[in-house]
Amino acid sequence: MEKIEQANQEAVRRMLAADPVLVDVIPASDAIPDLGDRMILHAGPPIEWGRMCGPMRGAIAGIAVFEGWASDLEEAETMAAEGAFRFAPNHDYDAVGPMTGLTTKSQPLMVVENRAFGNRSYCAINEGLDKVMRFGGNDAEVLARLAWLRDVLGPAMGAALRDLGGIELKPLIARGLSMGDEMHQRNVACSGLVLRALAPAMAKTSRDPGLLAEALGFIGANDQFHLNIAMAMGKAIMDPVRNIDASTVVTAMSRNGTDFGIRVSGTGDRWFIAPVEMPQGLYFAGFTEDDANPDMGDSTIVETIGLGGFAMGAAPAVAGFVGAGSAADAAIFTRTMSEIVVGENPEWTIPALDYLGVPTGIDIRLVVETGIAPTINTGIAHREPGIGQVGAGIVRAPMACFEQALVGIAEELGIA
Amino acid sequence: MEKIEQANQEAVRRMLAADPVLVDVIPASDAIPDLGDRMILHAGPPIEWGRMCGPMRGAIAGIAVFEGWASDLEEAETMAAEGAFRFAPNHDYDAVGPMTGLTTKSQPLMVVENRAFGNRSYCAINEGLDKVMRFGGNDAEVLARLAWLRDVLGPAMGAALRDLGGIELKPLIARGLSMGDEMHQRNVACSGLVLRALAPAMAKTSRDPGLLAEALGFIGANDQFHLNIAMAMGKAIMDPVRNIDASTVVTAMSRNGTDFGIRVSGTGDRWFIAPVEMPQGLYFAGFTEDDANPDMGDSTIVETIGLGGFAMGAAPAVAGFVGAGSAADAAIFTRTMSEIVVGENPEWTIPALDYLGVPTGIDIRLVVETGIAPTINTGIAHREPGIGQVGAGIVRAPMACFEQALVGIAEELGIA
Repeated sequence: MEKIEQANQEAVRRMLAADPVLVDVIPASDAIPDLGDRMILHAGPPIEWGRMCGPMRGAIAGIAVFEGWASDLEEAETMAAEGAFRFAPNHDYDAVGPMTGLTTKSQPLMVVENRAFGNRSYCAINEGLDKVMRFGGNDAEVLARLAWLRDVLGPAMGAALRDLGGIELKPLIARGLSMGDEMHQRNVACSGLVLRALAPAMAKTSRDPGLLAEALGFIGANDQFHLNIAMAMGKAIMDPVRNIDASTVVTAMSRNGTDFGIRVSGTGDRWFIAPVEMPQGLYFAGFTEDDANPDMGDSTIVETIGLGGFAMGAAPAVAGFVGAGSAADAAIFTRTMSEIVVGENPEWTIPALDYLGVPTGIDIRLVVETGIAPTINTGIAHREPGIGQVGAGIVRAPMACFEQALVGIAEELGIA
Repeated sequence: MEKIEQANQEAVRRMLAADPVLVDVIPASDAIPDLGDRMILHAGPPIEWGRMCGPMRGAIAGIAVFEGWASDLEEAETMAAEGAFRFAPNHDYDAVGPMTGLTTKSQPLMVVENRAFGNRSYCAINEGLDKVMRFGGNDAEVLARLAWLRDVLGPAMGAALRDLGGIELKPLIARGLSMGDEMHQRNVACSGLVLRALAPAMAKTSRDPGLLAEALGFIGANDQFHLNIAMAMGKAIMDPVRNIDASTVVTAMSRNGTDFGIRVSGTGDRWFIAPVEMPQGLYFAGFTEDDANPDMGDSTIVETIGLGGFAMGAAPAVAGFVGAGSAADAAIFTRTMSEIVVGENPEWTIPALDYLGVPTGIDIRLVVETGIAPTINTGIAHREPGIGQVGAGIVRAPMACFEQALVGIAEELGIA
C-alpha cells in the first residue's frame, strides 16, 4: 500500500535525521518528576509481581532496600507480594534499562537529548561486569556500588558533560562500528571513545583527585560502559518515530524476562506481546542452560535502530563470544537483517562489508512475510534472584509479536 | 639449509616470547647517557648533513634551537653545515623515532622493557597531528609543544606508569587488532586503551587539575598517540633477535628520507642500504605527489614485527585512508605478506580473517625468491623543511636491500 510505504519512509527519515547528544547525568527524581516513593520502573512490557521472573524479583527486593523502602530483602519481597510497590515499564516514562532495568527515584540517570526533535531519554549508568543488579544481584556489594554511582560517578559525569556541552553520539557510533563494536554485547571501542571525551572535562571539574581516579578507573575497567548510553540514544532516536499513521516500522522491542513486547509506529504505544524465548549462547564456567533465565531487558532498543545483532558484521569477535559461529559468519547476520528493514543507514557503515549501512527500520510486514525474526545479541542472567550473569548469546524476537502487530495495524487501517 | 631453518625458528621463538611493557617516561639524557650536547639521533641508517632530505634538515634546525644550541633556525643550519652536530641513527642507541625521528638529550622518552629478555627501548612521545617536528615542522608552535611534552606530559606519564607498574603491551595489541588498528597508520583503538589505563593513575599522581586536564585532553585528541609506543615495543621485541648465527630474519627496517636500510639477524648491526622509494597514496587538500618527500622514519619497525602493512586485514578503514583500494582488499595485503615470513603470531590475530595470526619474521630469502617486497603503511612529509604532513600511503621496501643482505649472509656462512 502506497500509504504504508510513505509512512515507513517518513519513519526512517526521522530515524536518520535524529541528532542524539549525551548531555547530562541527573537524579531520576529530576528527570522523571512522576517517579515517586515505592514506584519502580522495569524493563519490558507491563508485568505484575506474580508473573515476574527470578532475577527481576531479586533486583526489585534489592532496589527497595537501596531506596530505604524496606529494611532487608525479605521484607522487600513480602511488601512486593502485598502490592506495596507500583510497577510500570521504563518505556512509559522516556526511559530504558538493561536486563532487569530498574529505575527508581534516587538513581542517577544519563540524559540523551535528540536535538533534531527536542525529546530527551534516560538510562541508568552501567554498573560494570561483576555481580550487578541488572542481572538480579542484590547483596551489600551491589547496593554499595549503586550508592557510589549516585554519590560520586553520577555527579562527576554530570558536571563534565555540562562543561563539555555534551558528547555527540552519531559520529561516535560511526567510529565504533569501524572499531569492532556492535553496541550490544561489545562496547569496548565506544566506551573508550566516551572516556577520552569525558576524562579531560572530569579532571577540569573535579575537586577530589582520589574520587576522580576512582571514577576514571571505574569507566576504564568497564567494557560495557557505553551500552547504557547506546540504549538511551536508541530511545531518543525512536520516540519521535511513534504514531506515524499507517507506519509498520517497529519503534520498540523489549522484554521483562517473562514477556517480549514490541511497539509499532502506526499503533502508537500499544504493546504486542508473546512469551520470551531462551537465548542460545555460551555459558561462563560452572553454568549451563539449566541455570539460564529467558531473554530480558530494554536493551533490544539498539537492534531497533540497526545495532546489536543487526550490526554483527562490524563485530566478528562477538560472533565467537555469543557462540554464533565463526568470525566470518558475522556478516551473514547483518545481511539477513537487511531483508526485514526499510533501508540502510548511510552514516553508520561497516568497513569490513565495504561500507554497507546498518539495516534500519524493522518492517513488521517483511518480518512476517520472510519468516525472519530480528536477531538480538544479549547477556544471559541466572534464573534465580541474587546470582547474576551466567553467559551471553543470541535470541530471536518471537514471531507471534509481529503477527499480532500486523493484525493490529490492519485493524487500525480498517482493512482487517 | 637446515642451519638457517633452525636459526630462523629461534628468531621467531624470541619474537613470540617477548614480553614488552611500557614502564616509564624519562629524560633522554637518563635513558641514553651517551647522548651529549650537540648530538642528534635520527631515523634510518647513518647519513651526513649533505645528503639529508628537506624535512630532516628542517627538523634538525628546529631541535637545535629547542636544545639551545643555536639561537635561530638559520644559525642552526649554518652550524649543521659546518659539522657542529654529531649525527647517529636511533637504532644504534636502543631508540627509534617516527619520520625524521630526532632524539636529543632534553626530550622525554617512553621506555618499553622486554621483560622476557631484560632489554629496554626508547621512543619520544607522539606530538599529535598538526604541524609537528617529525614531518619537518620547526616553528615556534612546534618547539612550544616539545617544551610542554618535556615539562608537563612526560613527567605526568612517567609518574602514572611507575604508579601502575607499567602497561603490558602484548594483550593491548591483541585487543587493538580486534578493533581495527594496524598500529602504523591507525592507532585510534590502542590510543584509547592506553588512555583508559593511564587516566586513573594520572589523576592519582597529579598535583595540578588544570595540567591534568591538558594532559588527558592532549592524549585523547591524538588518534596516533600509540604509534610511538608501538615503535618502542617493536624495537624492544626485535633487539634480542639480533646476532643469531645464520638467521635470515629481518631485525630492523628503517629509512632516513634518503636511504632505506635493513638489518638481518645473522649479519648483526650491518645495514643493507638502497635509495628510498616514493609512497603511493592519497594527499591532503592542496597537496600533490610533487610536494612529497620520499619514504622516511624508523616506524617500519612495526612491519618488522607483523603489524602496519602486514596487519592491514585487521584495519579495512586504513586501505581507504592510504588509497590502497576497497576495504575488502585489505585482507589481500596480509595474505600476501604471509608468503615472505617464517610463521604467524598466535597471540596477535585478526578476527575478520577468522583469527589468522599476523605474518611474523620476514625472511630475506623468501622476499628475494618471491619478488614480494614488504608492504609499509606510512605518512608522507612535504619535501621542503618546515611544512609538515601532506598525505598518507603505501610504500614497498626496496628489493635491493634484500638482495644485498642475501649476499651478505652468504658471505657470513662462507657459501658465496
